Amino acid sequence: MTDFILHERLARGSADLGRHGICRVMLKNQAHFPWILLVPEVAAEVKDLHQLSEEDYLIVCASIRYFSQWMEDHLPIEKINVAAIGNQVPQLHIHIVGRRHDDIAWPGVVWSCNEKQSYADDEWILLQEKLRAAINGNTSC
Amino acid sequence: MTDFILHERLARGSADLGRHGICRVMLKNQAHFPWILLVPEVAAEVKDLHQLSEEDYLIVCASIRYFSQWMEDHLPIEKINVAAIGNQVPQLHIHIVGRRHDDIAWPGVVWSCNEKQSYADDEWILLQEKLRAAINGNTSC
Repeated sequence: MTDFILHERLARGSADLGRHGICRVMLKNQAHFPWILLVPEVAAEVKDLHQLSEEDYLIVCASIRYFSQWMEDHLPIEKINVAAIGNQVPQLHIHIVGRRHDDIAWPGVVWSCNEKQSYADDEWILLQEKLRAAINGNTSC
Repeated sequence: MTDFILHERLARGSADLGRHGICRVMLKNQAHFPWILLVPEVAAEVKDLHQLSEEDYLIVCASIRYFSQWMEDHLPIEKINVAAIGNQVPQLHIHIVGRRHDDIAWPGVVWSCNEKQSYADDEWILLQEKLRAAINGNTSC
């Protein structure tokens, strides 16, 4: 989509790491939980997942599965929460969030947790590098 | 799966309306939001969406799309929230929740909303009938 513009509330506080399938892949700078946002680069009127074309829906579902598996394989997490909500930011986006039984919001959901913490600089850079490698299909690092 | 047993916390307060693809389809008796639960009838060790086999994953994704579209077409809602969380009930289940700007939890998420309200009896029966028809592929009613 040439007219795609990432919503400023999705861009804020996140790193834009590349593209997978038809999605922009963002990493939130929230040290409490590893948190990926997938933002399909589609027309603004597509606000809910099922409104994607069947082809785009399958591509997005494949990306959700890919990054969920990556998170399970590469990060010290115990559970993955996946959601498309969009009540506050209308641009379609999917959350993939790694959870642990000892995280600050457990067993609640992250969307009602107001505790924010940025990563330490070196952790933040390393996590971005790992995820960028996954986006590029090199998950060995 | 012959050894599938629906978790009692998913069964409680919901109507078990049938099967679509590989999922049990449940309707929560929560009048504040139309709320479908899809429960894939898979082995208990599959706790997150991406842990489904590729084939099962696609079947479940198709059911999510089908019931989301049904909700948009047949119920007075403005937005759909879709999520696989499972922090409190370990059995894999997917929430499909219809939202309105004037609902009790808007714009927050339903999972941190403690307000419960059962449907009036006639509403509850009618909604079950409508959804049962959708499960059986007859979405005209």
